[in-house]
Amino acid sequence: MLGGSITLAVSRALSGVRTVGYTHRPSTRSRARKLRVANEVTGDIKAAVRGAGIVIVATPISTFEDIFRRIADSLADGCIVTDVGSTKRMAVRWAAALPGTVHYVGSHPIAGSEQRGVEFARDDLFDNALCILTTDKNSNPRAVRKLRRFWSVLGCSVKIMSPAEHDRIFANVSHVPHVTAAALINANDSEQLRFAGKGFMDTSRIASGPANIWADVLLTNPTNCVRGIDRVIRQLNKLKGAINSQDKKKIEKLLQAARDKRSKLIKHKMKTKELI
Amino acid sequence: MLGGSITLAVSRALSGVRTVGYTHRPSTRSRARKLRVANEVTGDIKAAVRGAGIVIVATPISTFEDIFRRIADSLADGCIVTDVGSTKRMAVRWAAALPGTVHYVGSHPIAGSEQRGVEFARDDLFDNALCILTTDKNSNPRAVRKLRRFWSVLGCSVKIMSPAEHDRIFANVSHVPHVTAAALINANDSEQLRFAGKGFMDTSRIASGPANIWADVLLTNPTNCVRGIDRVIRQLNKLKGAINSQDKKKIEKLLQAARDKRSKLIKHKMKTKELI
Repeated sequence: MLGGSITLAVSRALSGVRTVGYTHRPSTRSRARKLRVANEVTGDIKAAVRGAGIVIVATPISTFEDIFRRIADSLADGCIVTDVGSTKRMAVRWAAALPGTVHYVGSHPIAGSEQRGVEFARDDLFDNALCILTTDKNSNPRAVRKLRRFWSVLGCSVKIMSPAEHDRIFANVSHVPHVTAAALINANDSEQLRFAGKGFMDTSRIASGPANIWADVLLTNPTNCVRGIDRVIRQLNKLKGAINSQDKKKIEKLLQAARDKRSKLIKHKMKTKELI
Repeated sequence: MLGGSITLAVSRALSGVRTVGYTHRPSTRSRARKLRVANEVTGDIKAAVRGAGIVIVATPISTFEDIFRRIADSLADGCIVTDVGSTKRMAVRWAAALPGTVHYVGSHPIAGSEQRGVEFARDDLFDNALCILTTDKNSNPRAVRKLRRFWSVLGCSVKIMSPAEHDRIFANVSHVPHVTAAALINANDSEQLRFAGKGFMDTSRIASGPANIWADVLLTNPTNCVRGIDRVIRQLNKLKGAINSQDKKKIEKLLQAARDKRSKLIKHKMKTKELI
């Protein structure tokens, strides 16, 4: 879904740029060709990256290391390699397998959904989306500038931070919420869930994301996720304590704090047009 | 929002039925009149219920007892009194203040949103919504039948259960998810939240609901809510344990279980048309 959306968005925004899609699955290749998500779709990973100006890895995080190794010899000098994984520290580490003649910069476009598969690819997925680039002291400034321009042209508003900062923030605003949504569902039996309303459906939506992709996310950001889960548990216990002691003022205070923070957040997202 | 939606839906579905809206707030009355949400809008609660066939209380749960007392003397013989509160056991208890000549039955239409106020009233709010009626051995069968018909005509699919069963189920599928959404927001600072994507916005949406209304819900269903919070914490700890021990199989199993349960739930909701 993400890979196909990138090539579609490139074709929409950058006429003349040639896109090549790679996937190891023959069925995905044939769907990708039918849907014309890229100028070329191939099952040969080395051929896919040969001569490319930008290589974007959009696979589960646990495959990055292997992919970096397999493409290493086929990359053109000066090529920019990036990935769209939801955690960044491990990706940087694995990028050490790339030759010194290419430039790795991490990307994390905050776009997508719980949907999976090339048939969900959309050329407008990145319109007004946030995209984080992660850099460190070894990052090539020209490569960072070029990648920043690339995501901007695709519709993103780009922010740059360190991989460590990225992983800390996104544990809290994305990875832990995913864990929480799964926990909420797992705490209920199916019979009971039939009574769930729209609120529950929204609250649990992200738990429909692919399990293997999210397992990779959690496993490559364990410390931040564990700390974040503990923070949520502390907040749950606060509310539990207030309910147990029938402390209306405290319950209202905690709920109101969440409500106020969320209104502020909505206002911000409207301003940046991330929410429309 | 709920009260106004009921009178609008009545006007749409039951031509000839006269609707009277009551609110103690002069500003709400004037907006309700401008929006023509009811045939009559009044600030006199006794006059509002006089001669009514069905009286529907759509205020925060903590006001029910007082409202039941205040309307008791003005209710016509055989009048049906109901409420649309999200918890039902306390409402039944407070309904004891009503005279023996009227029939109380609890209602809980699973409709609405985090929005608040008469300007969000919609005549189609109940289309394909689920509505729970709560009854016990003292419930008048004719009143239950009539109320069942009433909600059906408004577009609801009606299910009947005991107040205790209702409160147990809705703690798990509604009240605890609300607490969890608030906890998720409260576990983050505002700076960090700016990086939240659409997933987080959906997961936390219900936390924008009015704090006083939700405090009432939690306070009138404390035991079930506390148990439900503990169940969610247990599930969070399970996932935390699996992350801590880098147990990919276990993480995937837990995430996949949630994903499968949610797909099943979506299929059910599509069949009942609660989701479209």
